[in-house]
Amino acid sequence: MENTGAFSRLRDRLRDVHNLRMAAAVLNWDMEVCMPPKGAAARGGQLATLAALAHERFTHPETGTLIRQAQDNQDTLADDERAALREVDYDYRRAARIPENFVRRFAQTRSAAYHAWLDARKQSDFAVFQTHLQKLVTLARELADYLGYEDTPYNALLEDFERGMTTAQLRAVFDELAPRQRALIERIMNAPTQPDAAWLEQTWDADAQWAFTERVLRDMGYDFDAGRQDKSAHPFTTNFSIGDVRITTRLNERDLFSALFSSIHECGHALYEQGFPPEDEGTILAEAPSLGIHESQSRLWENIIGRSLPFWRHYMPVLREHFPGQLDNVDAEQVYAAANRVAPSLIRVEADECTYNLHIILRFELETALIEGNLAAADLPAAWNEKMAAWLGVAVPDDANGCLQDIHWSHGTFGYFPTYALGNLYAAQMFDAVTKAIPGIMSSVGRGEFTPLLAWLRENVHRVGRRKTTPEIVRDATGEEPAAAAFLKYLENKYAPLYGLAQVG
Amino acid sequence: MENTGAFSRLRDRLRDVHNLRMAAAVLNWDMEVCMPPKGAAARGGQLATLAALAHERFTHPETGTLIRQAQDNQDTLADDERAALREVDYDYRRAARIPENFVRRFAQTRSAAYHAWLDARKQSDFAVFQTHLQKLVTLARELADYLGYEDTPYNALLEDFERGMTTAQLRAVFDELAPRQRALIERIMNAPTQPDAAWLEQTWDADAQWAFTERVLRDMGYDFDAGRQDKSAHPFTTNFSIGDVRITTRLNERDLFSALFSSIHECGHALYEQGFPPEDEGTILAEAPSLGIHESQSRLWENIIGRSLPFWRHYMPVLREHFPGQLDNVDAEQVYAAANRVAPSLIRVEADECTYNLHIILRFELETALIEGNLAAADLPAAWNEKMAAWLGVAVPDDANGCLQDIHWSHGTFGYFPTYALGNLYAAQMFDAVTKAIPGIMSSVGRGEFTPLLAWLRENVHRVGRRKTTPEIVRDATGEEPAAAAFLKYLENKYAPLYGLAQVG
Repeated sequence: MENTGAFSRLRDRLRDVHNLRMAAAVLNWDMEVCMPPKGAAARGGQLATLAALAHERFTHPETGTLIRQAQDNQDTLADDERAALREVDYDYRRAARIPENFVRRFAQTRSAAYHAWLDARKQSDFAVFQTHLQKLVTLARELADYLGYEDTPYNALLEDFERGMTTAQLRAVFDELAPRQRALIERIMNAPTQPDAAWLEQTWDADAQWAFTERVLRDMGYDFDAGRQDKSAHPFTTNFSIGDVRITTRLNERDLFSALFSSIHECGHALYEQGFPPEDEGTILAEAPSLGIHESQSRLWENIIGRSLPFWRHYMPVLREHFPGQLDNVDAEQVYAAANRVAPSLIRVEADECTYNLHIILRFELETALIEGNLAAADLPAAWNEKMAAWLGVAVPDDANGCLQDIHWSHGTFGYFPTYALGNLYAAQMFDAVTKAIPGIMSSVGRGEFTPLLAWLRENVHRVGRRKTTPEIVRDATGEEPAAAAFLKYLENKYAPLYGLAQVG
Repeated sequence: MENTGAFSRLRDRLRDVHNLRMAAAVLNWDMEVCMPPKGAAARGGQLATLAALAHERFTHPETGTLIRQAQDNQDTLADDERAALREVDYDYRRAARIPENFVRRFAQTRSAAYHAWLDARKQSDFAVFQTHLQKLVTLARELADYLGYEDTPYNALLEDFERGMTTAQLRAVFDELAPRQRALIERIMNAPTQPDAAWLEQTWDADAQWAFTERVLRDMGYDFDAGRQDKSAHPFTTNFSIGDVRITTRLNERDLFSALFSSIHECGHALYEQGFPPEDEGTILAEAPSLGIHESQSRLWENIIGRSLPFWRHYMPVLREHFPGQLDNVDAEQVYAAANRVAPSLIRVEADECTYNLHIILRFELETALIEGNLAAADLPAAWNEKMAAWLGVAVPDDANGCLQDIHWSHGTFGYFPTYALGNLYAAQMFDAVTKAIPGIMSSVGRGEFTPLLAWLRENVHRVGRRKTTPEIVRDATGEEPAAAAFLKYLENKYAPLYGLAQVG
């Protein structure tokens, strides 16, 4: 009785915290999608208040007291309540280790660093950002000290984004991936046939692109009564509840694929958020256990499904309807080939499936070196450019197109990048498991039927929420530990035929 | 020093309260304009959290302590700081008089009553709402007791919407207005000529209407970099900061005027909110001192400007451009006449300038009788229908078109309605003052130049914020007490020529 009381008081307290965070998410969405320019200054203050109050309420000692009281009699709780309590305790312990004073200092330094990074990128001059980056690295190490770690401070930071994954595990996986991906890229660069993409050089009407993306989203199972798509400078997904999960995309009339694949990608994230059990609404269970598992959903849909031949066999007539007269001499095979062109390039977010992970591994190596004290901020551009040349054969012309291209470090975020590559690996492992469980899965895709795939993901990933950790989800869903093999096999099976390569292994 | 400390700590505390309220405003705007249907349930909880935290922080005893400390040495404060302190003290005293327990009971009863009202209106059956209304009346009287009052409990409620105005003053003003307006309506109904409105019976393209409203808003001085217009079921204005003031409208292709005049109306509100001094951002000074003064701005622009002949002389060619071929045989005089048709009708929000105040006075008489215990909720429909017949010659066919038409009472809101009529009176008084200060003001309007008018309003109303009360603003701006004369003169001067009436008085 006393315990039920504590648990229910804890739940009320956390509901306020949750609602403050959701309110902040609405304000952020509005800022990116709707807000007029002169609203920016006050909006910053509004977001700061919401964040401060949420943090204050969550880390208040009363939260800890209620957690302990609830734990003392947790045998009176239902399974889901116990799971929620365990997860809340996990978050609370981590948050409580960080002193208030550090939170403020870190926020101030990040804010200054972010603005310096904007300037630096504009001027394409790393020097403008350098001392800020060094300060952020120092603070990130301090943060790691508060959080506690074994082996390397990077483990403490990584835990925030990919709980349960260690730096050593990542190194092992990446050491397997990197040479194999580089070898594949080299074979592709030397391939006798390259895909014909000349037909892409047309103007693709923005309204038609929009209509086509909406058609695909609907087919995938995105519930427009529980979300909406809008335009923004940078595509993203956000959620205010299970019944309100929104995505954005950007339209470029010179590019047939940009909006479409970004819509499918964000929809992969959104299907996850729309797929939590309704009874978990507002609780910690209605969350993904890591960024890597979230990214697995977006990449599975974008790359494995959206860039597949069956997908295009189904959508070719639909695409022709949306762009009458523009695709009369183009067939599904050509679209498939063009959507899977491989070309080492400068910018991570524009990279193809074969080169993408190398961009990530490069960042992982550099950020671990920064955090472990083996690389000074001042030496970052040279180290970056050297790796880009060695791994991708790409000469970096300037910092804006080099080490200043991503926002993450300017936010003091170290340990985030690997989750993108992990998303690719998990996605390939899951898809392997799906094809075993449902052998006709790609035939369904070829008929525009995504329900079997979505049902499998709902059952094995979405509805789990935070009841399991990411390694547990991957293991239970695929029968394997998180690893590189499935992804490498997927790349080989897809790209060898596409580029007429002699198949390896 | 100690005092400066208290004032600045008070300011920080109030900034959080303000930011929570602004966040709630964003969530409300989103709910009306963007939110997908399945987002509704969680959104209610989010808004409840924000409201509860804002209330809790504002009414916390610490706020009162800081106010008293700041007051103790207020001679060290600047004028604006003293004004802000006075206003905060006023709000705090009123809020602090209301027990927490009452706030919760009232909120619960309102929520149930609102849903009962929705049902009752749908079924057009007052009986469904009756007991809820009676409970709300009882609670409103209890609220009045907490707040304190002289003469009548209605005074305590009125103060929340039109501070400084008393029931006795309202009665005096309305007793002058009602017979004069009824006499005018009778003359108009018996007028030999009625305006030709047959040409209005066309389809008016929604996109063209939208473009035309945006053109007019821009001309009026609405800053689209500090706001935006969207569509919603019920038009409204909201603000998240001086730099982010948004309006909505609704489009009806069978109605040329509906969107336009609602846009102008909301823009009148928005110009007020965009017109606070930037240095007042986030403070209590950047607020209107009453709803009546806010409404004066919307009605001045909508009726006195937007429904004037010079306005239509200027916009006639613009309107023709937006609706090519549809207005070839219509001139500015005809549009002016059609925009000012008078016809007693059932619904307040659709009423014309001549009948509008009678709808208000009817509600005022009924709600004072309810609050003063002279009318039982059960007797409301009969009393309503009787007055509608006597005053407007209109037979009320059912409750949905009668006493259930407005949302206000279902929210437990008594004392709000009079502010609509006061808005009309203040607007007429202000416009009188403007024409004296700037004799060529309507010639400017006839050239589509609204800057002189806006500048006068900015100076005399907008920039004042809460530095003065509404009676003070009206007095300082017009040289007169709030009264009925200017409005009655305005009606007579406008409608006598329009309907070919022998002029009176």
